[in-house]
Amino acid sequence: MKIAIAQLNYHIGNFEGNLKAMQEAVETARHQGADLILFGELSVCGYPPRDFLEFDDFIRKCQASIDALRAMSHDIAIVAGAPTRNPVPEGKDLFNSAYFLYGGEVLGIQHKALLPTYDIFDEYRYFEPATVFHTIPFKGKKIALSICEDIWNVGNENPLYTICPLDEMMDEKPDLILNLSASPFDYEHAAARISVVRANVERYGAPLFYANHVGAQTDIIFDGGSIVMSPDGQVFDEMPYFENCVRTYDLDLVLRGGVTQEQPKEKIKLIHDALLVGIRDYFHKLGFQRAILGLSGGIDSAVTAVLAAKALGAENVRVLLLPSQYSTSHSVDDARDLAESMGIQYDIVAIKPMFEAFETALAPMFKDLQFNVTEENIQARVRGILLMAMSNKFGNILLNTTNKSEMSVGYGTLYGDLCGGLAVLADVYKTEVYQLANYLNETTPDKNGQLSGVIPQNSIVKPPSAELRPGQKDSDSLPPYDILDELLLQYVERRQGPRELIARGFDEALVNRVLRMVNVNEFKREQAPPVLRVSSKGFGMGRRLPIVGKYLS
Amino acid sequence: MKIAIAQLNYHIGNFEGNLKAMQEAVETARHQGADLILFGELSVCGYPPRDFLEFDDFIRKCQASIDALRAMSHDIAIVAGAPTRNPVPEGKDLFNSAYFLYGGEVLGIQHKALLPTYDIFDEYRYFEPATVFHTIPFKGKKIALSICEDIWNVGNENPLYTICPLDEMMDEKPDLILNLSASPFDYEHAAARISVVRANVERYGAPLFYANHVGAQTDIIFDGGSIVMSPDGQVFDEMPYFENCVRTYDLDLVLRGGVTQEQPKEKIKLIHDALLVGIRDYFHKLGFQRAILGLSGGIDSAVTAVLAAKALGAENVRVLLLPSQYSTSHSVDDARDLAESMGIQYDIVAIKPMFEAFETALAPMFKDLQFNVTEENIQARVRGILLMAMSNKFGNILLNTTNKSEMSVGYGTLYGDLCGGLAVLADVYKTEVYQLANYLNETTPDKNGQLSGVIPQNSIVKPPSAELRPGQKDSDSLPPYDILDELLLQYVERRQGPRELIARGFDEALVNRVLRMVNVNEFKREQAPPVLRVSSKGFGMGRRLPIVGKYLS
Repeated sequence: MKIAIAQLNYHIGNFEGNLKAMQEAVETARHQGADLILFGELSVCGYPPRDFLEFDDFIRKCQASIDALRAMSHDIAIVAGAPTRNPVPEGKDLFNSAYFLYGGEVLGIQHKALLPTYDIFDEYRYFEPATVFHTIPFKGKKIALSICEDIWNVGNENPLYTICPLDEMMDEKPDLILNLSASPFDYEHAAARISVVRANVERYGAPLFYANHVGAQTDIIFDGGSIVMSPDGQVFDEMPYFENCVRTYDLDLVLRGGVTQEQPKEKIKLIHDALLVGIRDYFHKLGFQRAILGLSGGIDSAVTAVLAAKALGAENVRVLLLPSQYSTSHSVDDARDLAESMGIQYDIVAIKPMFEAFETALAPMFKDLQFNVTEENIQARVRGILLMAMSNKFGNILLNTTNKSEMSVGYGTLYGDLCGGLAVLADVYKTEVYQLANYLNETTPDKNGQLSGVIPQNSIVKPPSAELRPGQKDSDSLPPYDILDELLLQYVERRQGPRELIARGFDEALVNRVLRMVNVNEFKREQAPPVLRVSSKGFGMGRRLPIVGKYLS
Repeated sequence: MKIAIAQLNYHIGNFEGNLKAMQEAVETARHQGADLILFGELSVCGYPPRDFLEFDDFIRKCQASIDALRAMSHDIAIVAGAPTRNPVPEGKDLFNSAYFLYGGEVLGIQHKALLPTYDIFDEYRYFEPATVFHTIPFKGKKIALSICEDIWNVGNENPLYTICPLDEMMDEKPDLILNLSASPFDYEHAAARISVVRANVERYGAPLFYANHVGAQTDIIFDGGSIVMSPDGQVFDEMPYFENCVRTYDLDLVLRGGVTQEQPKEKIKLIHDALLVGIRDYFHKLGFQRAILGLSGGIDSAVTAVLAAKALGAENVRVLLLPSQYSTSHSVDDARDLAESMGIQYDIVAIKPMFEAFETALAPMFKDLQFNVTEENIQARVRGILLMAMSNKFGNILLNTTNKSEMSVGYGTLYGDLCGGLAVLADVYKTEVYQLANYLNETTPDKNGQLSGVIPQNSIVKPPSAELRPGQKDSDSLPPYDILDELLLQYVERRQGPRELIARGFDEALVNRVLRMVNVNEFKREQAPPVLRVSSKGFGMGRRLPIVGKYLS
């Protein structure tokens, strides 16, 4: 038996596009001689469809796609994901299901039992868990279907669920396990995925074929990395990251095992590749081509600009240099050097005239009150208006350049540098932005095709500054980034509280100060752009906190 | 036996404040001769605590509050809500629990079984459902504890869950049922609550005491309206809406029944009262006193200003009149009349000089491109900067004045009129805003204490306009509001798709146009301020849709 895995870039709600991509994959698998093709979870509608699932019309369209796939399954089994209606009035109205289509018929439907409802996941919002489990006989083999989380309760010291669904099928002695996944990227996830697949193969003694999605759905990025694992626990194949791919495997060879074929897993390269996909899919899935951003001469906007140019093409990126009266001439030079090196169109607009117009207009109310953060914010917001005006006039999406360290502690101006359609770096800590800058300099050709180091060294080595008052430095307001970032990692990703952080050796006053900064700035993150998620805990749907809460604040 | 219900305004994570309020309520109940006092769901920490629940430190603090309440339970039973740890590794790490404290001991703990995970609710994100159910014996009675959703699966044609937890206790023949709730307001919810309580009383033949929260937690408003229902299905008492209240009831009288005591339920008054609480609690729970907003002479900002003045005091509200070169003099007059009538401090700042500064700065890029929505947005954003500058300089929170019709179809400028800490009217359709304006005029004294109609008639009767280009009217871009609002109600609240809407008689082209406007503007709502929720489906956490989705768009 030959089994194909299709890891595709779906588009939520784009039924026509998804069906077309799946039909092409079926053709490819046929050419490769496959008896069966395995797609990802909820493949006909894309993942996560969120509250679109509450519309009957949406469910009908999902069923129509399944019907279309069924109609082309005469000579190849097609295993695809779709929501199905729960016929019983009690319980949620839908199941998250895997269809096994063959010979123009539905040979079986297996619902998902474990419904992830944590971090970015909301599945119990929509779906009733499966309670019935059966293998599906196909060409003399018994096939166990599972959907994503169904295999994740195995090999876990603190399992989230009270059952392991595949346990319920073991009486029927399945010959192989298929898993339809939509398992989002983070820079540690590919390794975790292999461990979980291995724990299942070891527990059940059967080979496992695991199909993931690729591509980004706004903030959530799927990396592919679909897996075939032999009963010996070796990775028979791990499909490429971030690429559409259809590959067919001979089950006999998979059963024999003895082969290991894994993708390299280097953190900064993975983040880099994920961000490129995140930018590209945000634009293209919305039907846009061109980006605009503000280039300050600092590291964050430099990295964002280079990523945008790589994702969209330098000809589709435009930047504004928006010096304030407190900007150094070095900053403008560094920004210009970068734009010229990459071949990015740039314009320079000094913000002082608009700032002064606001000062004049506000003078009757402000009278002789001191310059303070108000005036810094006005300057940041003047930049926001200029960039949004370019976005509106030319149909470019504004990219936000905030990093995760700033986003965590609220070091940024709402409606100013927090503007944008997409926050590219807001799940990347400042210390990681530097690593990304060095990686970009090592790997990114300039417009002449030379590895000349497109990001000026000065942007990398100079002390970070918002340049909104004379001599301002980030270090005036924030702890050193190496300490801050480690503290934020422990608090935001690892959910360590004050007691645990102090026990880890962080200074108590610093812990209290930083946690307070994070918590009182929830109102800013509430209104921030969507953040490309590359860590296990990004800002956005994956992290839900009250605004008026009074806790560690 | 005498039973007290305490409906209190909790503050998420404010353990000290919540405990103090609960201890005072215990004292009050003691003075009223109560044998038992019933608090709301998760009362020690406030609701919804969201991802604070993922911090061990937060759970420890909840337990410390329970310990403090237990210590004062020597002569009165205290029934309070708190998260508890799940001792079993399998399943979620927490339960959502009701503690029965008496004689300095924990007499019983009942976990919640039905975990709402829809609309604004995320309980399965944190909690394992209860599987064990027992009544608690107290002073010769058997008491059945239930938590909020636990009673909502009864009397429901399409129940969300497969069990009714109280069924599991009926073998023990409980004498009465207690319910700890945190059931958010919408303008139809109080009536639904009474129906559900009645369905339970009829099913189980026992009286039911239902304790709700009051007050707002950012966007989510609790209205109280706690209920005592006699076995005859009559509402023995419904406690006031939106007010802290501790009342003690004689169980014998409740059992006897024959009394009906309900609160009046008038939609516009309920919405009005809810919005006042929403504004007041947002400010006070964040430690702020004063609001700022832009007053345009239109109906939305007029209604918002009057609500803010009623919630915070006119002396704590400041407004800016920000005429554009396209504003009529009538608009400025109407805005000034309102401010003067209410005794609200106002300043007038023409936005033309700043708009012109931007035009000048952008001219090298824009060259001779036509005036379009870009220039409209610049003007809206200039207003945003001015208002935010006032907010920053004086520590006033900016109130957003967008209504639900505009928020639905994206008729508003991101970082412009969509600025603000809190969106007061964004769950109130335009047609409802008019009703609210009339209600305010009938009930709101001006600064001289006269019912003179504080909102100028002109603001109510003139055609709505953003006044950002010559002669602009909302009706140039949008269908008439009476049709639009009914269509939005059916789509947003009732989740009717295109087929159902057309079947209801809406024009097909209009349906397609409006649904597309709603769906392509998800990116704006993603970055909008939190919205005070007064309907069964508000924007924010209760409605979760993809941004890059391509569905009806």
